[in-house]
Amino acid sequence: MDYVDIIGLTAAAMGGISLFPQVLKVLKTKSTKDISREMFLLLGGSIFLWLVYGILLNNFPIIVANFFGFIQALVILFFKIENQLKKRRGLTK
Amino acid sequence: MDYVDIIGLTAAAMGGISLFPQVLKVLKTKSTKDISREMFLLLGGSIFLWLVYGILLNNFPIIVANFFGFIQALVILFFKIENQLKKRRGLTK
Repeated sequence: MDYVDIIGLTAAAMGGISLFPQVLKVLKTKSTKDISREMFLLLGGSIFLWLVYGILLNNFPIIVANFFGFIQALVILFFKIENQLKKRRGLTK
Repeated sequence: MDYVDIIGLTAAAMGGISLFPQVLKVLKTKSTKDISREMFLLLGGSIFLWLVYGILLNNFPIIVANFFGFIQALVILFFKIENQLKKRRGLTK
């Protein structure tokens, strides 16, 4: 493995865990007002396609990084959309 | 180009534009309370390493997607950190 591979793998690993602090913040505060739903729909869609790509190529690092990334994006999206539905029903502001 | 390449390129393109709605939201509202700084530090670092990786491999799609992604992450981080500094100085709550 040369240094180019190491840079790529480090990039993939950092990207795979990058949503985790946002997941913790959302779980702690339950507040998602400043978070863009469209960002996480696009990012979640992108991560999902990377996951499919990794499965098709049978590339284990791509599968692992994007599997965890996808779960994290889903958790954030779940809270964002739940808060928007609550707001629409007038249960919160 | 087979369908696996198309899935990978679509994933890269969606990822490259995914931060744009969040940039627009931050520019519009100037509010970043619910955004995790650590998420965008990790994501920005990951995107930067992907950019370096693309440059080292001379891979144009990787360079383009991550160049724009990196600019977007920097804008979001700039507003987040500026707001935190303002809060620390007691200029806003």
